[in-house]
Parts: sequence; C-alpha cells; structure tokens
Amino acid sequence: MLNQPRELDGVFHALADATRRQIVERLSRGPASVSELAEPLEMSLPAVLQHLQVLEGSGLVRSSKVGRVRTCHVETAALRTAERWMCERRATWERRLDRLGEFLAAGDPAKKAKKRSKS
Amino acid sequence: MLNQPRELDGVFHALADATRRQIVERLSRGPASVSELAEPLEMSLPAVLQHLQVLEGSGLVRSSKVGRVRTCHVETAALRTAERWMCERRATWERRLDRLGEFLAAGDPAKKAKKRSKS
Repeated sequence: MLNQPRELDGVFHALADATRRQIVERLSRGPASVSELAEPLEMSLPAVLQHLQVLEGSGLVRSSKVGRVRTCHVETAALRTAERWMCERRATWERRLDRLGEFLAAGDPAKKAKKRSKS
Repeated sequence: MLNQPRELDGVFHALADATRRQIVERLSRGPASVSELAEPLEMSLPAVLQHLQVLEGSGLVRSSKVGRVRTCHVETAALRTAERWMCERRATWERRLDRLGEFLAAGDPAKKAKKRSKS
C-alpha cells in the first residue's frame, strides 16, 4: 500500500495546524531560536514548545542546543515525503483524465463502426 | 500569512490517517461506491462512513447519491492547495540554499579584498 504510513501520519498531523505551518514557513527561510519563533506568535512559550515538540516528533523540524539557546531548523526530507505522496495521487488522477480524454477524442467506437459500414 | 488556513487545516488533518489516504488513493484511480471503498478496509461500514465524512468535510472527496448507491470521487483542487503550500516552502528553502552556495562559491569577500590589495 503506502510507504512510511507512520511517517506520513505524523507529517500531515503536524501540518494540520496554522501555528505549526507558520513555524515551518519561518524555518524554511532559515534556522531560528525558540524565542525568535515565539515572537510573532500570540501564545505562551510553553504552548510554542508544545507545537515544536509535535513538529520534531514528525521529523519536520530538528533542533540543537548550544549553551542556553535552542536553534531549530526545517528538515526538508519529511516535507518531500508528504509532497511526493500528494504528487503521486495527482499524477494517477491526471493519467486517468488523459485516458478519458483520448477515449472521447477517438469518438464512440460503435458510432464509428456504423459510419464505416455506410460509406 | 497563509492562504486558506482553515482549508489547509482540514486537508492535512484528513490526510493524517492511513485509512483516509488509502481511500484517496483508491479514488484517484476513479470514482467508487461506498461499498467498493469499504471492501478492502478491515473495519465496519459506520467506521468507513466516518472517515468519508472527514474527507468530505476537508473538500478532498465529493459524493452523490443515485437511487441507493452513493458514489464518491476525489476533488483534486483541495489536494493541489496543500501540495502548493508544501512546494512553496520547499522552494523558499532551496532558494536559501542556492544563495548560500553562491556565497560560498564567491569565497570570503574580506580575504578577496586582502588578496587584491597585495597584487
């Protein structure tokens, strides 16, 4: 069936929240400390840390601590896995539409056969 | 900030479950009745209907009833919205890496200036 179903569960769950998407959006522009990430968000630091925990759990974000500063960065591999899943679904759907288009362009085979027998 | 945050919440939440992804996968190959969708899934029909409700709520799936048969099909617009969001994050990240690469390829400007003043 699917590759890495657990990984996909985690990534999609992490992205199902506007605050967490905002964090990923910020980190895609470059690494940031926890306090830099918290600054534009209207919530307490513990709430931000909880969101970061979900993001780290999903593999979308990694962090490292140097001294008292924890710096976060985005992990594009997890984002890519989810993007690939979506892209594959869309490709299957578009191939189906292409085949349908070709079928319609070729015309109704029954009608064509009738036409040929008349000429 | 983000376009359609509510829509994205719903789509990502709907996709954060392996059964619901399996349903989307099946429907990307073509429309199917509820019983056709339920067949490969090891769960009760009410459980399948609940998953379909989440998928319909997110806009990923639409269904219509003719007589006693409810037929479902995938709505690629919602899938595209989520895919676009991911693609944009990745593009931002890759542009950042490109700029970093250019900076490194150009070498350290301070060192270059020193070299020029010597020659």
